[in-house]
Amino acid sequence: MTEKNRSNTFKDLSFINNIKSMAVIGTSENRDFFFLRNHQEHFQGDLYAINPKIQKIPRFDDGTEGKIYSSVKNVPGNVDFVFIAVPPTKIIEVIDDCVEKGVRLASIFTAEFSDAGTKEGIELEKKLIEHAKNKLRILGPNGMGLFYPKLGIAWRPKFPNFPGNVGFIAQSGGICNIAIYSSQELGFNFSKVFSFGNGVDIDFVDLIYFLSKDPETDIILGYIEGISKGRGKALQKALELNDKPIVVVKGGKSGIGSVAAKTHTGTMTGEKKIWETLFKQYGVIEVESIEQLLNVARLIKCYGTFNIKNIAVLSCSGGYGVILVDLIEKFGLHVPPFSKATQIKLEKEIFTSGTSSNNPLDVAAQIYNTESIYNIIDIALYDKEIDGLIIDLPAWFFNTDYLFRKDRYFEPIIIKAFGLGHKYHKPLIPIIQRVNCPEDRIRIVRKLNEKKIPVFGDPLEVIPLLPKISRNFEIMKKKKKTE
Amino acid sequence: MTEKNRSNTFKDLSFINNIKSMAVIGTSENRDFFFLRNHQEHFQGDLYAINPKIQKIPRFDDGTEGKIYSSVKNVPGNVDFVFIAVPPTKIIEVIDDCVEKGVRLASIFTAEFSDAGTKEGIELEKKLIEHAKNKLRILGPNGMGLFYPKLGIAWRPKFPNFPGNVGFIAQSGGICNIAIYSSQELGFNFSKVFSFGNGVDIDFVDLIYFLSKDPETDIILGYIEGISKGRGKALQKALELNDKPIVVVKGGKSGIGSVAAKTHTGTMTGEKKIWETLFKQYGVIEVESIEQLLNVARLIKCYGTFNIKNIAVLSCSGGYGVILVDLIEKFGLHVPPFSKATQIKLEKEIFTSGTSSNNPLDVAAQIYNTESIYNIIDIALYDKEIDGLIIDLPAWFFNTDYLFRKDRYFEPIIIKAFGLGHKYHKPLIPIIQRVNCPEDRIRIVRKLNEKKIPVFGDPLEVIPLLPKISRNFEIMKKKKKTE
Repeated sequence: MTEKNRSNTFKDLSFINNIKSMAVIGTSENRDFFFLRNHQEHFQGDLYAINPKIQKIPRFDDGTEGKIYSSVKNVPGNVDFVFIAVPPTKIIEVIDDCVEKGVRLASIFTAEFSDAGTKEGIELEKKLIEHAKNKLRILGPNGMGLFYPKLGIAWRPKFPNFPGNVGFIAQSGGICNIAIYSSQELGFNFSKVFSFGNGVDIDFVDLIYFLSKDPETDIILGYIEGISKGRGKALQKALELNDKPIVVVKGGKSGIGSVAAKTHTGTMTGEKKIWETLFKQYGVIEVESIEQLLNVARLIKCYGTFNIKNIAVLSCSGGYGVILVDLIEKFGLHVPPFSKATQIKLEKEIFTSGTSSNNPLDVAAQIYNTESIYNIIDIALYDKEIDGLIIDLPAWFFNTDYLFRKDRYFEPIIIKAFGLGHKYHKPLIPIIQRVNCPEDRIRIVRKLNEKKIPVFGDPLEVIPLLPKISRNFEIMKKKKKTE
Repeated sequence: MTEKNRSNTFKDLSFINNIKSMAVIGTSENRDFFFLRNHQEHFQGDLYAINPKIQKIPRFDDGTEGKIYSSVKNVPGNVDFVFIAVPPTKIIEVIDDCVEKGVRLASIFTAEFSDAGTKEGIELEKKLIEHAKNKLRILGPNGMGLFYPKLGIAWRPKFPNFPGNVGFIAQSGGICNIAIYSSQELGFNFSKVFSFGNGVDIDFVDLIYFLSKDPETDIILGYIEGISKGRGKALQKALELNDKPIVVVKGGKSGIGSVAAKTHTGTMTGEKKIWETLFKQYGVIEVESIEQLLNVARLIKCYGTFNIKNIAVLSCSGGYGVILVDLIEKFGLHVPPFSKATQIKLEKEIFTSGTSSNNPLDVAAQIYNTESIYNIIDIALYDKEIDGLIIDLPAWFFNTDYLFRKDRYFEPIIIKAFGLGHKYHKPLIPIIQRVNCPEDRIRIVRKLNEKKIPVFGDPLEVIPLLPKISRNFEIMKKKKKTE
């Protein structure tokens, strides 16, 4: 296939789901066998170590003798996947060995190719591709490669080894580390994460296409600085063929940021407007930070994609409720009055002086009547005019030392009440402010994560994301209709 | 003084700094002596309980017998301050007693005055003012009154009893609770907090003026829904006479939010534009949430007010650095190249493959060379072109289980390095992402708080605040020049 033809197609990566064996090439005592150890943690298949200079490696965690070979060619069985961390001078020889052995995929951690900006680096990168002969697929160089918890493929220690349904694509390994190490506390797990570095072979476009067809992936996240010349049409095609929610951060949108991206991965970031138009057209959810990216994933993971317009607010402080309303309205959503039927029912539940049974609901003065809080949430969500509910409840309510009444049923009833969003298939979003009692907050957030309830700490962390998700929902709905 | 005359002046509240005795009026067994107990925790002077129906109250924590009197008039010594939580039907009698006793200040927790929206409530509120005879100053009704840690005045349990230099004014007690309970984890303390409820006597304007002249207060925070008719000029005058940083959230800016504010405190919120113009003119820092309000206080508490334009970025992930640059530029700040001299010095410190010694600095690959990180920060801040530094370092770096190298000097050196902002009087702002290891994050944040280093968890939490603080700095500088 010529380079020109290839630029409009997607590489077949479906074999990734069937990796059964792997080798770490260049495992070294200097690094205390870092990459080998990380894969030893959880890899499900046959794992080999490759280094021509080392005869012995530490035992694996399961007690079996660690096996080391001088070349991947000498491994007795098949090797589907390799993680390569050898000096740039050795890379071509290693690639030749991999091709000869029939390896399908190589993650190349080694840097100093086009990323170095030198003529030698660029030349070496070209040579890399030639020697891979379109038989060996390459992630990298200058990337961390593949995190695949279902199979136990992991480039760093203590990656959460729980298969999930969120896919993530980035050049930068550092960004991937942040995403992966965050996911568990945020209450979701990854299907696969790709750090494709310089992207000489497999690139952003291939990976978007792959994840859009991957049965293990329902939500696609990406951090993208740019794509190589001539891959624009393929990206468009991939987006056209996709029907999953895609969320991206586009790096290098500012002038200076674009220079920084060039330094970082040698990528040309392209015109800001072109990207924005493309994202808009295909319903790609564009956000501004990794934190927003992960938070959109949490919301969709918990509630699916949704279109939310009319929001009920339940506040434990009248003033905080007013601020929530202002922010919700500022971001184009609405806090409407409840329907008459709802209002009548609510007035029977709210009875304490100083509360309000209108939307925004103010329940400060009766928060200890936990059963009533449960009923109020149930009534508000039942209202057909209401698409979702935002609740604020500061963390100290989960520490009995701070309470007016020590009620051991408060916590379980509140957790049950916060699950009512799932009963009505409407997003219920608790904002548990990061006030005092941070340890209590950690405990509650973990409990709520288990019940697929995404907790935030600050209204500005979540409210700006809601119209973005709704817009994606509308575009995808239209698309399905026309298909 | 007629009502008309009074509306252009500020009530003299300077006596507050000399409160020596207080009484809780209406302390009741039903509430398990809640407000009495809370003040018992720390109140420095003579504390009395008042209830005509109770003869005995529990011993104070210090073991002395609790004293209860049927009326404040029967207390043998002076009573400077009272906290009133009696039913509305009893309030006038209690106020009469206080005036007769010579009480200076009353916090009235009791609600159901104008806040109830009833004719009776409004009448009762008028009567309240008449009976106070301009001798007894009133905070409230329908408010929590005064938190004054220096004297141990506190309406809720476990309020952090450490005097600080931040003042806070809000009608809403709930908002005050959030601010007060947050302050300790955020690394600052309050001089005084006022929850003035319906504001029948002491209002927002009086309190702004008072705090602007209060020697114990350096930073003034406020949550304001509106002020009563005819107090606009006085507010202008108070702002004119002020030379401290004032930060506010204006509640009820949206149509619906304004209705909610009316329900909440009976306040007319006024025209959004009038407020915005006023704030702009006097350099009031307007923010959108309580979280932003508190974060501005932290930044100013740590670094004083500042004008920041050119920012250096030090990132532990190239991609994250690019995102930081995009956000900084988006909010009107700049990430310029370093001066030549700085660049030369930096290039000697950054030597690992895959790093970048330009601004944004990318030190991912040499983060374990902690001494070099210290030097890099020192060199970058020394640059005259640079006004401040933003650093990202995910929380897992503070948990040795996750590290490539287990270096016990990493944490103390990083903490020392993060203190370099103070050496150069330039804001150094660490973003320690809320990834995994939340417990380690809590520990580090507390350590950094002690050293007046304000940690954030998300770039969007802090970057939008920097131009706001800078604008205030410029306006206040001009003001001082013309004075």
